Amino acid sequence: MDSSAPSALERVAGHQQRFDVSFAKYFAELSGDLNGAQLGRFAPRCLELLAQLSLRGGKRIRVALLHEAAGLVTREEVPGLAEAALSLELLHSHALVLDDIMDDSPMRRGGPSTYYACREDLPDHPQAALGLAMMTGDLAGFLALRVLFQADLPADRKQAMLDVQLEVTTDTVIGQVLDLERDVTSSTDEELLETVCEYKTSRYTILAPLRLGLLAAGQDLAPHEESLRRYARLVGLSGQMRDDYLDLFGDPDVTGKPTGADLRAGRHTYATRELLAATGGDDHDTVRAALGSPHCTPDTIDRVRDIAHRHDVHTRLQTAIDRNARAASAEAASWHRHWNEEAVGVFEQLPLWGTRRNR
Amino acid sequence: MDSSAPSALERVAGHQQRFDVSFAKYFAELSGDLNGAQLGRFAPRCLELLAQLSLRGGKRIRVALLHEAAGLVTREEVPGLAEAALSLELLHSHALVLDDIMDDSPMRRGGPSTYYACREDLPDHPQAALGLAMMTGDLAGFLALRVLFQADLPADRKQAMLDVQLEVTTDTVIGQVLDLERDVTSSTDEELLETVCEYKTSRYTILAPLRLGLLAAGQDLAPHEESLRRYARLVGLSGQMRDDYLDLFGDPDVTGKPTGADLRAGRHTYATRELLAATGGDDHDTVRAALGSPHCTPDTIDRVRDIAHRHDVHTRLQTAIDRNARAASAEAASWHRHWNEEAVGVFEQLPLWGTRRNR
Repeated sequence: MDSSAPSALERVAGHQQRFDVSFAKYFAELSGDLNGAQLGRFAPRCLELLAQLSLRGGKRIRVALLHEAAGLVTREEVPGLAEAALSLELLHSHALVLDDIMDDSPMRRGGPSTYYACREDLPDHPQAALGLAMMTGDLAGFLALRVLFQADLPADRKQAMLDVQLEVTTDTVIGQVLDLERDVTSSTDEELLETVCEYKTSRYTILAPLRLGLLAAGQDLAPHEESLRRYARLVGLSGQMRDDYLDLFGDPDVTGKPTGADLRAGRHTYATRELLAATGGDDHDTVRAALGSPHCTPDTIDRVRDIAHRHDVHTRLQTAIDRNARAASAEAASWHRHWNEEAVGVFEQLPLWGTRRNR
Repeated sequence: MDSSAPSALERVAGHQQRFDVSFAKYFAELSGDLNGAQLGRFAPRCLELLAQLSLRGGKRIRVALLHEAAGLVTREEVPGLAEAALSLELLHSHALVLDDIMDDSPMRRGGPSTYYACREDLPDHPQAALGLAMMTGDLAGFLALRVLFQADLPADRKQAMLDVQLEVTTDTVIGQVLDLERDVTSSTDEELLETVCEYKTSRYTILAPLRLGLLAAGQDLAPHEESLRRYARLVGLSGQMRDDYLDLFGDPDVTGKPTGADLRAGRHTYATRELLAATGGDDHDTVRAALGSPHCTPDTIDRVRDIAHRHDVHTRLQTAIDRNARAASAEAASWHRHWNEEAVGVFEQLPLWGTRRNR
């Protein structure tokens, strides 16, 4: 299996590069439209902030999944894929902007979060800065739907694709709200963790791109819904666990976010849950005291990470991440029966590729 | 003309009543869907807050315009109008929720703003309260598009109607951002005031319902665009001036908002602009000192209102409101040539009806 991995990676990198070019072009055209209308300084700034965040990378995992999903069905060019890719990434920018407001996060993708950029723009007007950031997020969400809506596609195909994206928008809101509930109630309920993951990650990051790509390629989804959902759930779970893992064990230079944000926020994640379950005595007390504490300094986070290592929390998380990734890969392997070998191979590799990058 | 006024009022009241029933039904069904999914406490609360704000009235002016616009073309039932009405009012709720976050407004429509309701729910979690309010607004915006998208309509007609609503979403964001710019830069630029009004009111409150109603009724818009835009601009201008007037001279029991919010926020509106232009000496200094001052108490607002009365600011504003309303009415009168008399009559009356209610 290892011999096919570089090829899957190369394909994903290719999608990412081509998309980044088209995303930059999209923003250039949009900003041309806006500048024509002479709309003061703030509206163009809004668009600039959105472009900066959007173009400052990210793995473009949704874009890769989308293209490979179409590739399951056909090797031809598929109309509407370019617009669907823009739609997915704009919707993602929307979520990132709002996330960073809700979490009061200063950093995103190795640069200032949109909220903090607005606060720097308007140091004497915190309320207006909040408004500007909210509107930047809002704009991204509506543009996400608009770009797909304006694709040149047969009406029924476009209808089906818009249906997917509109379902995603409300699902994502629900996921976000569940997430707030998890934070506020300090719930350690495993089911709630899974539901958050289902709504915030699986449906949104995995299932939607898969469905959009297949629909664009003319595939009837009904016979495959169950398998797609299982795959999305497993990849989502593995990915969420990985994010939670990286928050504690990741390298800020790689993740682009400061370490221990979940810990500082008192957020119950797969990592903090595992930490609390694995420790006893003084170690447990140290972890509990650090969770959600305003005094949770980088030193405290280092101490908690040491405790985690001593109790093998990293190993147990990795095992769970790997298990879900392997199950996802096995689900994709069942697609060989009806879909293109090469693209199926990418879906088999993708979950495993994610687990490898953690180490 | 006066003899037709009660009939126009009755028609508008009829639209409002029928819509309120269908809006309540919409939320009941939606909340049934959500409760089925067992999504904790916060997600249903989000929907409840949205329903409370949405069902706590408002003039439903957009709904009336929508139905009467369809009535310009046909007296038959028009499919898609019910969904378009829901879409318009959900989008309006979206704007209200976000407005109240940006303005930090405690009250809306005679009850707590969504933001303040969330803060009351979560007194120890201000950040989560902000998040919950933002998500409530977000949900409203996406549901607005979704409900129209799910209407049972011919593809090309639905496409045209969605196009209108999607244009409105981004226009409204631009209007909101322009509004922030006006506040922050304390601009007294007349052109900026007009552009804010164009984006935040005319296109959104007047033009969009007109277009949606006409499209639903099968009318080709192209030959009428210019006249519709002129009408929307004039009604919008008159309405915006009226809102600005009511902020200073209105009765909080009628408007459902505390008096002088614009003054306290230092917002340059048609009313504050007129106040600054009309006064000199001590009066001018008093007004300037009150504008945007944290010490702007109800007493200060009373004092400013007295100054305004002494300098005939209320009369001059009323004159401008009336002039624009009469011009709008004259524009609508030109529609008698091609559209149904009765509905045209409503469009002639509506702008004037608004001016009368101020007194």
